[in-house]
Parts: sequence; C-alpha cells; structure tokens
Amino acid sequence: MKIAVAGAGAMGGRFGYMLSKAGMDVILIDQWVKNVAAIREKGLQVNNDGDISTIQIPIYFPAELETEGIEVDLVILFVKSLQLDGMLQEIQPILKPHTSVLCLLNGIGHEVIVERYVSKENIFLGNTMWTAGLEGPGKVKLLGSGSVVLQNLGAESKETALEIVALLSEAGFKASYSEQVLYEIYKKACANGSTNALCTLLDANLSTFGNTSCGEDIVRAFVDEYADVAAVEGVALDREAITAFVKSAFDPNGIGRHYPSMYQDLILNKRLTEVDCINGIIDERGKRYGIDTPYCRFITQLIHCKEDIVGAKPDVFV
Amino acid sequence: MKIAVAGAGAMGGRFGYMLSKAGMDVILIDQWVKNVAAIREKGLQVNNDGDISTIQIPIYFPAELETEGIEVDLVILFVKSLQLDGMLQEIQPILKPHTSVLCLLNGIGHEVIVERYVSKENIFLGNTMWTAGLEGPGKVKLLGSGSVVLQNLGAESKETALEIVALLSEAGFKASYSEQVLYEIYKKACANGSTNALCTLLDANLSTFGNTSCGEDIVRAFVDEYADVAAVEGVALDREAITAFVKSAFDPNGIGRHYPSMYQDLILNKRLTEVDCINGIIDERGKRYGIDTPYCRFITQLIHCKEDIVGAKPDVFV
Repeated sequence: MKIAVAGAGAMGGRFGYMLSKAGMDVILIDQWVKNVAAIREKGLQVNNDGDISTIQIPIYFPAELETEGIEVDLVILFVKSLQLDGMLQEIQPILKPHTSVLCLLNGIGHEVIVERYVSKENIFLGNTMWTAGLEGPGKVKLLGSGSVVLQNLGAESKETALEIVALLSEAGFKASYSEQVLYEIYKKACANGSTNALCTLLDANLSTFGNTSCGEDIVRAFVDEYADVAAVEGVALDREAITAFVKSAFDPNGIGRHYPSMYQDLILNKRLTEVDCINGIIDERGKRYGIDTPYCRFITQLIHCKEDIVGAKPDVFV
Repeated sequence: MKIAVAGAGAMGGRFGYMLSKAGMDVILIDQWVKNVAAIREKGLQVNNDGDISTIQIPIYFPAELETEGIEVDLVILFVKSLQLDGMLQEIQPILKPHTSVLCLLNGIGHEVIVERYVSKENIFLGNTMWTAGLEGPGKVKLLGSGSVVLQNLGAESKETALEIVALLSEAGFKASYSEQVLYEIYKKACANGSTNALCTLLDANLSTFGNTSCGEDIVRAFVDEYADVAAVEGVALDREAITAFVKSAFDPNGIGRHYPSMYQDLILNKRLTEVDCINGIIDERGKRYGIDTPYCRFITQLIHCKEDIVGAKPDVFV
C-alpha cells in the first residue's frame, strides 16, 4: 500500500517518519517551499527526546504530483484546517476511485470539506492523541506517546478501515477501529475548544490556565456547549468524564507546560488561527440546531479580534 | 456647605480641585500614604492640558477624621469599588444624620453597599462623564470636559438633590437633576462593561478594539445583556442609542487612544480589577431575575483568570 501524507508539518512529519521507519512506501506532500527544500536536501530530521536522526522520504509540491505520475492507495491529511480545502483541490490528480483518504485533523466538521473532493466510501475519519512539534523547516520533534482511532464514513468501507488500522498499528501508532469515532473527535475537540483559545488569549500555558480560580468553571461551560451540540448529532458525551479528560492536560508534569498550537500560531507567529474549526463550528451548529452556545461564540469573536489587533496573516509557503 | 471628597485619586482629585477653586469649603480623604503626604507637603498638583498649577486642600486619613473633629454636610464618594465598603466603614464618624452622601462611582449596585452605612434619605446616586488621570501621588491630570447627573435615592430628598446640583454647577460641573439617573448609570455601565475588560484582555486601546471585525458584535451582545437586566428593574434602555454611545468612544480623535482604567489596574499595575462591579454584577442580577447573561459571566471569569495569572494584588496604601 502506497501512502501519501499531505501536510508535512509537525504531525505529518511524525506520521511520515514512523510509517517510513516501519518500511512502508510513503511520500510527503507539502506547500511550504523551505520545508520541501530542507527535506529534499537533508532528509527529514527527527528529534526523538534529544536523539537526532535523519530519514529520507520523497516529498512533493502538490503541483508536481501529476507530472511525476504519483499514485497512492491512501492519503493521510495533516494540513491545518484553513488549508484543507486548498490542499484537497491541489491533490485532486492523485485522488483516484481506489484512493482512501484518512482525515486526522483536530476539530469538528472537516468531513464536510473532504466530501467535496472524495466519495464518502473513500473517506475515513480519525482522531489521534499523538503529538509533535516543528523546530524549523524539515525538523520534527516527537513528543510523548499516543494512539489513533478511526472509522469509515461510508457504510461499505469497514474492511478498508480495518486494513488502515492494521497498517498504522504495524507502524507503531496503536491504532484501533471504533464505531464511536465521532465521540473521540468530540472529546478531543472539547479539550482543544476549552483550552487552546483561552491559553492564547490569557497568555498562559495549560497548567497556568487550569490553575486559575475560574479555569474549571470555564472548561465546564465549554464542555456543556459541545455536549449539547453533539447530542443533536447522536453523540452522547459524558460531561464529567470529558471534563476530567480536559483537566488531565493541566498536569505540569504532563503536557501542562505546553502552550497550545493556537498560541504559537497567533501570539508567536502572528498567523490566522483555526478557531473557526475549533469553537466557531460549535456555534454554527448550535445556531442550526437551535442551541445557544455563547462561550464558543464569544471566544471565537475574541480570537478574531486578537487576530485583527496583531495583524495576523495566513500561513505563507515560502 | 462643607464637602468631603472620599478617595483623592484621579476623579476625587479633579472634583476636590474644581470645588476648591470655586471657593467652596472642601477637604479630601484618602488612605494612600504617599498621596496624602504629597498633597500635604506640596498641595494637589493639577495638570490642565500642560498647564501645571498647585492648590492647597486639607487632606486626612480616615482615622484622623474623628480626632480632628471634622464635620461635613456632603461626602462625595470617589473610591474604587473594591474600597467602597472599607472607606464607608472608616468614615463612619463623619456620617451624621444631616450628612448627604453622593456616590459617583462607575458601575451598578453601589447603593446596596452605601445603604449599609447611610440612611436612604441621605443617599444620592449620580453619574459623571468627567474624566481624569493620575500621574503619581498628588498629581492629577484633567482630561476633556463632562457633566454630572444625580438623583435622590430617598423619596423625601429631592430638595437636597437640587441643592447638590446647584453647588456642583456653581463649581463648573454642568450638573443636572434627573429622575432617570439609573438610566444614565446603566448607560455608562454599558459603555464600561462592553469595552473595559475587552481592551484589558486583548491588550488594545478603545479605538483598536472598536475597529476589529467582531468589535461591534461584541458590544451589541453586552448591551443586550445590560438592557435585559435593566428592563427587570424598570429601566428601558434604548439599545441602538446606547450602542451608538459606546461606539462613540472608539473615535481615535476623541478618547479612542485611551486604555481603560481596568487595563491600567491589571496589565500595568497588576492590581485586582473592578470587573465584579462592572460585568459580574450583571450576571449576578441576571441569575436573580432568571436572565442568562453569558457574555458578562464569561468576561468576568476571564478577567479573574488574568488576575490570577499576573498575580494581581489589592491596592496597597503605602
């Protein structure tokens, strides 16, 4: 099975690295010029807890895929949500009738975009707890351990889903099939949605935010909004369990000292954020379902305010 | 009529200055040691658009009032809301049966605290559009022009209210009596409540916040919550007129370049804020009246988070 990882940032790099190291036939696709150049020239550099190694993985700009005659059986999507539509548009030449597409992006509702380019039977939705950081073009830092759960979106594709699970497990991803993947996606979205924008706005890491006197009340308000919206979609979130899951991220001996990626995007790099896919989507769906979701609405507005104030720009691929 | 201005910060200093300049018998009361020392030693220094002058006004610590045998006919309260209860407690010796108390603090609900120490017939509620800044102990900076509206809280005290109006007008304050003082208080609270905490959190001045893509939507959400709560109290706020009033503060040629006092308290001086009296009170009343006020609730929580994160402390009077 030939695999393409679309989006060779921190997470895409980690997945490309682990798949390649397991002997699989994998290529990377990316739009960031410096990143492609660095990986072509020196290979993908991987920092595994201080252990630096380098691995050669073919990397392509989307525009090169057709002329190079690339064909793959599986595309794993790891772009930022703001780039999802653009990436799918550009990689259309390799989206054949037999090509499966696995979407592992954080956030809710990406399948709506993927369905514009891929038939439902070829779409697989997943969620991963693996994390990684980017130390510069072509330089990935592995962080901790994780797992992957995934599910077929189309009714007929469970077999293929199980094949993808087997393949990911072979590469060490601790993958599993789940009929409840939406639950997992909502669960992680709750964790992101009740902390990322908050840490960004308050200039705090997870632990510092979690230890404020109002931190838990705020988390509970967000979890309630996610749970109310998810319920309409048939996903019954366990509010207490998910609140405990969110709070587990506040442990300073775990990932508590971590500043979420939105903080890195907006505060450090003055880039537009993914808040519409993390919080805005809940307010959008809430409106559709007749559920008020003021915390998600207000935090989305606040982050957009902050984007305007710092003059945030889209990612540029130079 | 002998007048005491309790709280000799920016606004108290301005009022003391204008009253004294108009030849009235006025004293200041303050708890801040350096401020009292500076005013005693050098007089109150007033920066009027670059024109620096100095005026001698007697100033007392609250604890000195009784031993000095001070008696006054009118106390004008200009402390921060967090210090209101403490100041009233300390100045009890001068709160005689004939002493009127005029509360001009920003925010909603101060009368509840004043009523603990002063009979209703002696309480006057007001609102002022005058502004001022503090440039250091004993140094007040006058900003722009303004007006005062006030009303008696007790049914029998309209005559006294009119006397206070006359006295303030004589000193140039453009004072007027209003049966609608709660409307004016709510109107100003809307302006503060939909901008102060926002500018503080977003690290923006009024104009910058107002010009963000979501600024107006946020203001409208807050005005709606204030209006919903005020309506239960019989105050029918004109939402469009008040939104326009709030937005007038965004003019960069007016006060738009100004950072609200909450920003100065929390971000510059790491002091606890008045958010509970500006936004928290609306959520508190909303809960009592069965009205959901999530924007006021969430912003109050966010400011308390930020207080925790920066390690904000109460004002210290050294």
